[in-house]
Amino acid sequence: MAKKEVRVGLIGYKFMGKAHSNAYRQVPFFFPDVPCKPVMRAIVGRTESAVKEAMELYGWETYETSWQKLLERDDIDLVDISTPGDTHAEIAIAAAKAKKHIFCEKPLANTIEEARAMLKAVEEAGVIHMINFNYRKCPAVALAKQIIEEGRIGQIYHFRGQYLQDWIVDPSFPLVWRLDKKVAGSGALGDLGAHLIDLARYLVGEITEVVGMWETFVKQRPIPKETGALAAVAGEEMGEVTVDDATLFLARFENGALGSFEATRFAPGHKNYNFFEINGSKGSLRWCFENMNELEFFSREDPPHIQGFRRILATDSSHPYMHAWWPAGHIIGYEHTFVHQVYDLMVAIDKGELPSPNFYDGVKCQEVLAAVEKSIQEKRWVKIEEI
Amino acid sequence: MAKKEVRVGLIGYKFMGKAHSNAYRQVPFFFPDVPCKPVMRAIVGRTESAVKEAMELYGWETYETSWQKLLERDDIDLVDISTPGDTHAEIAIAAAKAKKHIFCEKPLANTIEEARAMLKAVEEAGVIHMINFNYRKCPAVALAKQIIEEGRIGQIYHFRGQYLQDWIVDPSFPLVWRLDKKVAGSGALGDLGAHLIDLARYLVGEITEVVGMWETFVKQRPIPKETGALAAVAGEEMGEVTVDDATLFLARFENGALGSFEATRFAPGHKNYNFFEINGSKGSLRWCFENMNELEFFSREDPPHIQGFRRILATDSSHPYMHAWWPAGHIIGYEHTFVHQVYDLMVAIDKGELPSPNFYDGVKCQEVLAAVEKSIQEKRWVKIEEI
Amino acid sequence: MAKKEVRVGLIGYKFMGKAHSNAYRQVPFFFPDVPCKPVMRAIVGRTESAVKEAMELYGWETYETSWQKLLERDDIDLVDISTPGDTHAEIAIAAAKAKKHIFCEKPLANTIEEARAMLKAVEEAGVIHMINFNYRKCPAVALAKQIIEEGRIGQIYHFRGQYLQDWIVDPSFPLVWRLDKKVAGSGALGDLGAHLIDLARYLVGEITEVVGMWETFVKQRPIPKETGALAAVAGEEMGEVTVDDATLFLARFENGALGSFEATRFAPGHKNYNFFEINGSKGSLRWCFENMNELEFFSREDPPHIQGFRRILATDSSHPYMHAWWPAGHIIGYEHTFVHQVYDLMVAIDKGELPSPNFYDGVKCQEVLAAVEKSIQEKRWVKIEEI
Amino acid sequence: MAKKEVRVGLIGYKFMGKAHSNAYRQVPFFFPDVPCKPVMRAIVGRTESAVKEAMELYGWETYETSWQKLLERDDIDLVDISTPGDTHAEIAIAAAKAKKHIFCEKPLANTIEEARAMLKAVEEAGVIHMINFNYRKCPAVALAKQIIEEGRIGQIYHFRGQYLQDWIVDPSFPLVWRLDKKVAGSGALGDLGAHLIDLARYLVGEITEVVGMWETFVKQRPIPKETGALAAVAGEEMGEVTVDDATLFLARFENGALGSFEATRFAPGHKNYNFFEINGSKGSLRWCFENMNELEFFSREDPPHIQGFRRILATDSSHPYMHAWWPAGHIIGYEHTFVHQVYDLMVAIDKGELPSPNFYDGVKCQEVLAAVEKSIQEKRWVKIEEI
Repeated sequence: MAKKEVRVGLIGYKFMGKAHSNAYRQVPFFFPDVPCKPVMRAIVGRTESAVKEAMELYGWETYETSWQKLLERDDIDLVDISTPGDTHAEIAIAAAKAKKHIFCEKPLANTIEEARAMLKAVEEAGVIHMINFNYRKCPAVALAKQIIEEGRIGQIYHFRGQYLQDWIVDPSFPLVWRLDKKVAGSGALGDLGAHLIDLARYLVGEITEVVGMWETFVKQRPIPKETGALAAVAGEEMGEVTVDDATLFLARFENGALGSFEATRFAPGHKNYNFFEINGSKGSLRWCFENMNELEFFSREDPPHIQGFRRILATDSSHPYMHAWWPAGHIIGYEHTFVHQVYDLMVAIDKGELPSPNFYDGVKCQEVLAAVEKSIQEKRWVKIEEI
Repeated sequence: MAKKEVRVGLIGYKFMGKAHSNAYRQVPFFFPDVPCKPVMRAIVGRTESAVKEAMELYGWETYETSWQKLLERDDIDLVDISTPGDTHAEIAIAAAKAKKHIFCEKPLANTIEEARAMLKAVEEAGVIHMINFNYRKCPAVALAKQIIEEGRIGQIYHFRGQYLQDWIVDPSFPLVWRLDKKVAGSGALGDLGAHLIDLARYLVGEITEVVGMWETFVKQRPIPKETGALAAVAGEEMGEVTVDDATLFLARFENGALGSFEATRFAPGHKNYNFFEINGSKGSLRWCFENMNELEFFSREDPPHIQGFRRILATDSSHPYMHAWWPAGHIIGYEHTFVHQVYDLMVAIDKGELPSPNFYDGVKCQEVLAAVEKSIQEKRWVKIEEI
Repeated sequence: MAKKEVRVGLIGYKFMGKAHSNAYRQVPFFFPDVPCKPVMRAIVGRTESAVKEAMELYGWETYETSWQKLLERDDIDLVDISTPGDTHAEIAIAAAKAKKHIFCEKPLANTIEEARAMLKAVEEAGVIHMINFNYRKCPAVALAKQIIEEGRIGQIYHFRGQYLQDWIVDPSFPLVWRLDKKVAGSGALGDLGAHLIDLARYLVGEITEVVGMWETFVKQRPIPKETGALAAVAGEEMGEVTVDDATLFLARFENGALGSFEATRFAPGHKNYNFFEINGSKGSLRWCFENMNELEFFSREDPPHIQGFRRILATDSSHPYMHAWWPAGHIIGYEHTFVHQVYDLMVAIDKGELPSPNFYDGVKCQEVLAAVEKSIQEKRWVKIEEI
Repeated sequence: MAKKEVRVGLIGYKFMGKAHSNAYRQVPFFFPDVPCKPVMRAIVGRTESAVKEAMELYGWETYETSWQKLLERDDIDLVDISTPGDTHAEIAIAAAKAKKHIFCEKPLANTIEEARAMLKAVEEAGVIHMINFNYRKCPAVALAKQIIEEGRIGQIYHFRGQYLQDWIVDPSFPLVWRLDKKVAGSGALGDLGAHLIDLARYLVGEITEVVGMWETFVKQRPIPKETGALAAVAGEEMGEVTVDDATLFLARFENGALGSFEATRFAPGHKNYNFFEINGSKGSLRWCFENMNELEFFSREDPPHIQGFRRILATDSSHPYMHAWWPAGHIIGYEHTFVHQVYDLMVAIDKGELPSPNFYDGVKCQEVLAAVEKSIQEKRWVKIEEI
């Protein structure tokens, strides 16, 4: 019997478009048990030559040059929004009205109002919605969740999150779109901090109040001659950097835990150092994306003389998602997290149940981001409920 | 202008078949600059239902149930041999006669005679040939090669290689084909040791003499009810293990370096711990597959008070193969090494030049394997030239 | 020619008394070049039998049962205050009046008023004064300072400090003096946070404003039957924990850097994890006491393809203090930091110059501690100048 | 009641003399429970001015300029032989005849004949004897022994030992005594390999046969103007290096385990990298001196999804020897191993029982060293029983 098909329309074809396209291709290849088969029906971009090239390169069947046209098509079941944050709300709300399921890149939106409107729209439309906090889908992170749920960490006292990069530490690096508040919403906070907040919510629970600080260390940068994602070429004119290079904040969780968060693009030596540590009454967990296949786990329940942080190589068939890949010890990489995300989305669509994380998680994350911004602007502690 | 096509016929559809299939799919997706496009024309397996399923799952256009039929087809340019080692010679020699290019899994063959006959056949036929020592294609390993060639290590004194696994340490693990000398040729030596030997040859140079030892710790195991690659189910009858569980050997290199090699499937905690360290007059290099994206490098040319092993995360666009993937810090995994291998093969076919590693490397590796076996059987040092 | 002698009187004989006694013994043994020889003249404690035993065990010549008597003696040049923080001010001010040099345990005092009075007293008396922020004296930390001063880190953007322990995570651990605000001043903040603040000031510069949070996770604990330092035995009655189990704060430095600080005794798996990381425009530094002999250093000035965090084993004779110990690679431990501290103190006394760190550093640290407390009590950012 | 005194006479005052002197001083300070008190009665050296200086510096009561005179003294209970290996036999045999207990540096002697004569002498004399294989006394190594004895590793399959240094990799480093076969016996083999062999015997059991290889990479070096231990100054004349720069060997153990050994002074980046790994049927252990306070332990008995190498920081009071030092997490260093060695010796003298390791261990180690040398000279496997 042929498998149910989910016909996908992808909007965006750069860094994220490539990662998403790959995920739709790889799911049926590596997960023969996936209940629905994603069909790569259409890719959307404004520049016809470029989107056509992407269509061929990534294996899409057709293309459109406007997302509005995509939504009009009745051969599309799922809309994938892989564009910058300032465009998410308009597209997602229209897609929901068109009764399409939606898979949206993070952050859900650039403002909390937009994010809430998006959640309202998908709930009213009754469509399946998912947000791409892909780090949840690292097997080692999913294992961390499992270990917490097994009670091996006990009551959680501390969440310590750092997301460290260094790609703009050079002052001659050009003013790309990620450094423009209008397009990107914010800088390190929204780009990196959002991932930390989502991991904290996933693993520890809701945040109730925050206080933060941020800084733009390099205030002016050369305007790029040609805009690209990361590979832009610096021009001669200078422009204002309108987002934060680094943001730090403290947080209190509903369950009494204390949180420390730091997101920066000014940490030489760290390329994609998305790190967290959790300390609880019975044990601790530690993870860093740069060694994404490893989870460190300390248990106070081991005999005292052999207690120590274990380095678990989460590549065994006993670990989440790993039955689909290779024998134990054969590690996986970054794009696999998107494959797992799409796998979970296909399962959700098949069952008609909401996947995790979804737009609700996107809104909750956005609330914390907004509270952090407010706390910085007003130089005070801000409760999430104020947002 | 349409790209030249290379029409591939793949023999074998298990662990290696899956990894190879994925590589052919991923090369054009991630390496738009690849000069030839692999076309997945035919997959071959003896069991029709199974090969048909693999065809559909992995995206092959047609299938055959005998490799002889594949060789007769004139729509096949490249034959990919991903079967156990005892079948390589017959297939490869026939494929060469049929003027097909050949991509062969390692080890090249189970005996040195077969390996040499294979090399002779491809040389006489004038076809392109490659052997899949995929670990050469880890960006961090290719970087190690580059660092050596830049003269940063100086004269090499030591190669220290360990390939440690633990998947058969449990005595109840069944007698799968990899534990059967007739099919697998040897155990840890040919499976794991072969990779170490190839890395040593690639990075240091030719080996001139060896002395080894081996052991089969668990001499009898349950015969599997159903044979699989790694996932066989133990039956009730016991059978003889006819290969080595672990092999160690010492080696001397042509350039005066000393080598220490160890391959074992009895090292609990190590899943796919393919490790080497190189010490030279100017510096050292260290690498382990379980953290395949990292290379450790020590330089005696740094100022003394800041000398130390550097952990290079080889994910930057300045590192081999990495321009094709993600931004710095976004790691890649096991199957990417096959993608790089196929990329290099396409370049070689386009240029009509031999890729690295090729059947010559396969023969040289086999000579060392044979010398190690002989040294163990005769309990003495054996020169490679004796083989 | 006989070396100048510095006759020491030590007040306190527990954990710190032992560490200080050892330091006075070891300095002349391992540092034959020390310009003054410490003479272990007198040890002071309230309980005669106990102090007598300590005298014999640790090799002191005489003992006193009151520190007042010690100050009256004219055969004492240096008073070493190794008692809990609530007693420091009274002793130090009296010792200064008695024209004794002073070596004081951290924190300088339990209140900022006391600390300032102490500094005033030693400055008026013109005696040499030192405070025991011993972690400055780890060779790897002194090397970090040197690397910063050599300009290898450039402009500093981030200081990230964590001091993690787990010795009271068990709720049945008794209410020892360190958990009593009257004696200890504060909990994790003053005990652990003080060290982080001192390291931050030493390596980065002055802090200008802070905002913090703290928590006492276990609010009641068994009152000990017998009081000890760490080894107290729990009784049956319960008492109130009056200090913080964990304190976190954010900080801004005078030079524009951002600081993140976390001190906790509730981090299972961390025993004495005193950690910092510094990110600057040219590179980064990382250090953790649990591997105190190692410094990690990343340089953006290396060629791009070989950039990586170096693990410098700071045990070479080119590293601070290490000429005195063993050949390279022979690591040293915790008590060696006290030896280095005393060595520096002897040099200071010989030259008549103030050593680093001294009471001024003690006061500055105290100001930050006070600002953090105020910021927590008033739930707002507090400038150091408010203190 | 006064403690029994053990009056020590130490022969040698360089690197090892300093380490031993420190141990005698530190034992009563840190181990108040030691049953005998070592008294530092006399130190012996040929050069009067130098030995006098050492006496004062290290705190010895008297000195002698000949070891013969030391042996004649009736106020000496224990003779400590800290001289180069070529002098051990003569001194030790005479000391045994003089009914002195003996603590001897490793290697026991430079030849197997001498070593056996020494063992015979101490057994006939009935004195207590100990050899200083100090790495056994690292708490983490003693913990490894305990874990093995608790059955947590099961049947041992592999011992993998590497002792890597780099202090002579520079060809201009002078021809010090350690590079002179007459004085040192051998090079990397006897100096470093001996420690590995002792650790292997301690943790795994007796070795039955070996095959080895060695090399002297730099065959001529400048003769030093002034001879020192490590700090000699190169002169202009060149001399022959008569010992091995590096030695590797394979071994088979009585219990069926396979051993891989490597000792080299040509491994840039490794300062005192004394490393072993043990793999058994139930788990694995890993240790390296450069992080001597840590032991890595993998257990197959953990639930599968949380299996991983634990990093045990062996500084807890539950770990061997650590009750005497500092709170958990406060690491110790190189010289502490000598303190533990002397502590065990005092206990042995008090009980009249042989300590571990003793001259028997010295002889067994020497037999393996001799077998390795023979196997290299004769280019074949050599059984220990041939020696």
